[in-house]
Amino acid sequence: MASEFELIDLFQNIGSKYYKQNGIVISPGDDCAVFDFSKPVITSVDASVVDVHFPSNANPEDIAYRSIAVALSDLAAMGCKPRAFSISLTSPIGDKDWYQGFSKGVEHIADEFQISLIGGDLTKGPLNINVIVYGSPYTDKVLKRNGARVGDYICISSQVGRAAKGLDDWKDKKFESDFIQDYLRPIPKISLGNEIIDIASACIDTSDGLLADMKKIIEASNRGAEVYVDKIPYTRSINDINAGDDYDLCFTVSKENYLDHFIKIGLITDTQEIRLISDKGYDTDINGFDHFTNG
Amino acid sequence: MASEFELIDLFQNIGSKYYKQNGIVISPGDDCAVFDFSKPVITSVDASVVDVHFPSNANPEDIAYRSIAVALSDLAAMGCKPRAFSISLTSPIGDKDWYQGFSKGVEHIADEFQISLIGGDLTKGPLNINVIVYGSPYTDKVLKRNGARVGDYICISSQVGRAAKGLDDWKDKKFESDFIQDYLRPIPKISLGNEIIDIASACIDTSDGLLADMKKIIEASNRGAEVYVDKIPYTRSINDINAGDDYDLCFTVSKENYLDHFIKIGLITDTQEIRLISDKGYDTDINGFDHFTNG
Repeated sequence: MASEFELIDLFQNIGSKYYKQNGIVISPGDDCAVFDFSKPVITSVDASVVDVHFPSNANPEDIAYRSIAVALSDLAAMGCKPRAFSISLTSPIGDKDWYQGFSKGVEHIADEFQISLIGGDLTKGPLNINVIVYGSPYTDKVLKRNGARVGDYICISSQVGRAAKGLDDWKDKKFESDFIQDYLRPIPKISLGNEIIDIASACIDTSDGLLADMKKIIEASNRGAEVYVDKIPYTRSINDINAGDDYDLCFTVSKENYLDHFIKIGLITDTQEIRLISDKGYDTDINGFDHFTNG
Repeated sequence: MASEFELIDLFQNIGSKYYKQNGIVISPGDDCAVFDFSKPVITSVDASVVDVHFPSNANPEDIAYRSIAVALSDLAAMGCKPRAFSISLTSPIGDKDWYQGFSKGVEHIADEFQISLIGGDLTKGPLNINVIVYGSPYTDKVLKRNGARVGDYICISSQVGRAAKGLDDWKDKKFESDFIQDYLRPIPKISLGNEIIDIASACIDTSDGLLADMKKIIEASNRGAEVYVDKIPYTRSINDINAGDDYDLCFTVSKENYLDHFIKIGLITDTQEIRLISDKGYDTDINGFDHFTNG
């Protein structure tokens, strides 16, 4: 069985080549990390729990990648640039191979986004991964949920329900399915966040399901919405509007700022209600995944 | 059973009265929090796992307090001022009372140190609490582990083994024991960190046991040490030098910077070894608590 210190060594230099560009002053190895972005700091933490956020038999490389990707997705939603991250890994596993796989997944995504691993914690217990991300604004703006204005278009950038199908395909052992990557390796929409930072009025990432997350924008902005259900591209059925884990961005833009490659799925209204509009007579509900009342 | 959103509400305003003084720009409720300290940021994450870091039957107020205190202790070790924190709480419990107790413990320590809760995550699973702390330097300095110089005195500020006795007293149901508070509610040595920031050459907090943690200073500084075992104030026996969870600071200062209320327990030498010196013929080992090979 590997010692805690041997395992920590696996992570010691991940993203160290980006320390300078990321403003890292003191790197892992001390009681704390120190960084200086010379800008406001955007931060978030996301927990990934075995059998809730990933299947227990997923490979450690994917588990690591996914845990970090979903945390970076929160920075994408604020239109910010990721610079550093920390990982607190609680694991029951003593096998060094598992940690080697895990550290590969960490390194992969660190290189993909040129971010630096600046700290963490390693403890024994049921598998639970917490990722903390630190970023800075691309401009002098950050995107919030509460800026949607009456007349703004509600947009997404890709089809809903990919990840949910990926998870089912994984469970059904259809390992040739392309959707599995959508579930296990979601791509945080950092470039989209950067693209819309100066034109979007509100933004959120879709982790709990498109409708549930869109509802958070509408409520925070104290507005209503018409949602054109027939315009929403889905994977398996229209119920995908309630499917979680896609990690796309749902955002609002004025008519003037609308770009052709955005998928327009609704309109912000001055009512306090959300109207689902469809010519097909769908019977859909606005639900999100609530960790404490569902499942 | 309470919903995730009801539970999140319990934490919504903790430390909000300190937002301004702490440079909090965007508070909980968006995808990320935003702060601007206009100074370098010191950050750390600490996991507290049930039955590893606290007994499963501890009350939720103590669990919350302790989880945050041990994370703040890392800021103390760097001689820094705590300003904000986030909590990622994974819990199997559906009972709102438990979360109410937990949130009280959070509020208590937030008020004690005038820090703001800026975000978090709430997920279902085996009890696991991750606390992320964010601080800034009191001066233009931060304390590191690697600055000990030959001739420096090695110091601590209080007796070792208090927390370990507290945990045993708890297990033995000796609930009248004062030591239980040392275990369940360790006081992060923020003021001591501030006091020594300009005079100490190296510092660490003692979470894994005095000798194990002192060894990290000595190794990081690439020095040796003589440790005067008979000078170390202990609680039950000299084996307390290996007892974890005290969260005192172990630091080094030059002879000129030594103050009377520091407890001097050793001297930094130019050897690469640690010599334990005692007239009493103790047989002690330098061990720390390694989460993966002990227990």
